Amino acid sequence: MKEINIGLCGLGTVGTGVVKILKNHKDEIKHKTGTEISIRKILVNDVHKKRDVVINQEWLTTDANELVNNPDIDVIVEVMGGIDDTNLLLEQALNNKKHIVTANKDLMAVHGQKLLKLAKRNNCDIFYDASVAGGIPILRSLSDGLASDKIQKIMGIVNGTTNYILTKMTDEQKAFEPVLKEAQSLGFAEADPTSDVEGLDAARKMTLLANLAFKMEISLDDVEVSGIRDISQEDISFARSLGYTIKLIGIASINGGKVEVSVEPTLLPNEHPLAQVKNEYNAVYVYGEAVGETMFYGPGAGSMPTATAVVSDLMEVVKNIRLGISGNSYISPQYRTQLKENADKYTKYFIRMEVSDEAGTFQKITNVFSDQQVSFAKILQLPGSTKGTAEIVMVTHQISKQQLLNSLENLYQLSVVNKIISNYRVDGEE
Amino acid sequence: MKEINIGLCGLGTVGTGVVKILKNHKDEIKHKTGTEISIRKILVNDVHKKRDVVINQEWLTTDANELVNNPDIDVIVEVMGGIDDTNLLLEQALNNKKHIVTANKDLMAVHGQKLLKLAKRNNCDIFYDASVAGGIPILRSLSDGLASDKIQKIMGIVNGTTNYILTKMTDEQKAFEPVLKEAQSLGFAEADPTSDVEGLDAARKMTLLANLAFKMEISLDDVEVSGIRDISQEDISFARSLGYTIKLIGIASINGGKVEVSVEPTLLPNEHPLAQVKNEYNAVYVYGEAVGETMFYGPGAGSMPTATAVVSDLMEVVKNIRLGISGNSYISPQYRTQLKENADKYTKYFIRMEVSDEAGTFQKITNVFSDQQVSFAKILQLPGSTKGTAEIVMVTHQISKQQLLNSLENLYQLSVVNKIISNYRVDGEE
Repeated sequence: MKEINIGLCGLGTVGTGVVKILKNHKDEIKHKTGTEISIRKILVNDVHKKRDVVINQEWLTTDANELVNNPDIDVIVEVMGGIDDTNLLLEQALNNKKHIVTANKDLMAVHGQKLLKLAKRNNCDIFYDASVAGGIPILRSLSDGLASDKIQKIMGIVNGTTNYILTKMTDEQKAFEPVLKEAQSLGFAEADPTSDVEGLDAARKMTLLANLAFKMEISLDDVEVSGIRDISQEDISFARSLGYTIKLIGIASINGGKVEVSVEPTLLPNEHPLAQVKNEYNAVYVYGEAVGETMFYGPGAGSMPTATAVVSDLMEVVKNIRLGISGNSYISPQYRTQLKENADKYTKYFIRMEVSDEAGTFQKITNVFSDQQVSFAKILQLPGSTKGTAEIVMVTHQISKQQLLNSLENLYQLSVVNKIISNYRVDGEE
Repeated sequence: MKEINIGLCGLGTVGTGVVKILKNHKDEIKHKTGTEISIRKILVNDVHKKRDVVINQEWLTTDANELVNNPDIDVIVEVMGGIDDTNLLLEQALNNKKHIVTANKDLMAVHGQKLLKLAKRNNCDIFYDASVAGGIPILRSLSDGLASDKIQKIMGIVNGTTNYILTKMTDEQKAFEPVLKEAQSLGFAEADPTSDVEGLDAARKMTLLANLAFKMEISLDDVEVSGIRDISQEDISFARSLGYTIKLIGIASINGGKVEVSVEPTLLPNEHPLAQVKNEYNAVYVYGEAVGETMFYGPGAGSMPTATAVVSDLMEVVKNIRLGISGNSYISPQYRTQLKENADKYTKYFIRMEVSDEAGTFQKITNVFSDQQVSFAKILQLPGSTKGTAEIVMVTHQISKQQLLNSLENLYQLSVVNKIISNYRVDGEE
């Protein structure tokens, strides 16, 4: 039986992990795939650098051609990062009929759809499970599940940095800025945290999940994103007093063939399984028509979890080569992308505003909402932070986003409303 | 390409679900397996009964021989239940080189090891993911994960009935008996709830999980089991005041090649993900050396989740047939079963006792514990329920089960100790 040869691009901590796993689990991998997997070439920057793993010095090269144009190599495993250069390299590999495993979500978010199509044309697989949530085999679970179920909604905590920050803000009652600094010093946040904190990293991952779950071609621009920078201790503590926890949640849902993909701060009931996902952990909650609610929880990043996910993907690619079903695994877009309008997006909202503490204020406000047919599940009124003001916190019943926007617009025109302090999605309850 | 033919044993709600999924997801299944899966025969009690699904009348038979001795059938899908008769039928099928998918945990707990060996000898697969936790693909995840990681510990809520009862006892402060009655009337508990309530059902599932995770041959007799019948409102409320939730947890762990498998009421910190698994839901927490902590959450039972799991298993069996790796999927025992002694079993314990409220009592008790080198993380002392008594609630640091047993034995000999009301494992925290 022909053995499968791989070319490994990158020998950092993840690449080193992949080499170790392939060596230490050789027998199990052969049992599960029916063949041997051998490293043939490793692309590195410096062939003379001292390595943390025993490797055959002849494997090392600084020339990508020795991998992507090498007729002996069946699969390219890309764990080196980079976007445009790496994309060119992978395109070349696909044109040479090489399958791909990548842990590179930035690349997949930007070039994923093109690469997937190119792979399909060449009857090749691209597996990228490690790119979405490190240690959680979520793409494979979605893809396997899809073969016998229909996914209706995904809710995910898919960014470890923001979840770490929100956990500390919630459990230790600290403000955003000091927690961010702490996270940076501990290595849980980048020096430039923008992509994490603004929700862009999570949006990239939700795009990958939504495309797979709904078999559409949803682009990053279709995702409504808002980050966690404006969440205050007061928001967190009001949410808590109403029984909710604030998390940065990516949501992808489908109703009547129309989809909505968003990443936004969301209030979840404290007892919701996602509300309990703490620190840098990730979790993805999936609602399937047949199976109902399932959740996958695990480390969202880390070199060994990622390396393990890469090897799992590699094993699937190898099985598919041997089954003759390469290029089928990830479902290519089958439906025309139809996005929900604001009038189609239904959820509950948490709304917090500062008002003048004068007679008739409350009635004026409730009139605005009842004009829009908005009703409430919970209402709190408290003295405001300055004299003569009051604070009102409300949680609506299910309304459309259009109803919310109309209500907010009309509230702004009331002289008794000083400001809308915050408004967040409320999800995960009946 | 040869299509794969199956014989379906049973056409109840799960069997009907399997027929529907195979029909409605025909294309996806072909994409994922590279072949068509066709039903050839269905074993039923009554061929004339009206069915909730469109089937070819010629498929139906009351004669098992038309399935297990049918040269056209490649895979037997068993969803009819039963233990010994069903076992004979499956043995016959394996001897005829037919692969098996079963949702029957009672059968697998009793005859699983023999059937797995017989399958191995015949180069056949037996997949039984649906038997462990309905909608959670836990066996497959363990088995796939094992190919590139090493599992150190599993903690699972694997019985929906007891989790439902404990959830109601905790959230609604009701006693065991009325909640059990309610669960029975809602269909969440059997008329004879013994197997669930005493922890036997969970023990069967933990045996299946432990055998797979540790590649040993652990039998049901090796599992220490205690059920939930004696858990009182007071236990739950003391646990709560110390920050814990009581759950019936199955634990399988390995240290230095020795394993421990148990099912017992366990206190988990409220913020542990398993503590938040409510009602009839199941979840399995897995600690892997490389990946770290992952959790799989979903419905533990139900006919559509189970049918979905059966079809997923069937697809794996079909892929393996085509890959020529049948019989390798589930790892047969590779290590000699070595069970931990009580001196090797380390955890924390919650201990609750009633004592005489007199001078020196507390000192006598702490002397007993310090003689055994047992120290405490938390201690509560309160007035007892009757005059002249006090109640002491303690949570130890990590100690061995032997230290616990010695301490309890010595406590019983103190005249100031009226009774040890309860003692439970405490797990899931550092």
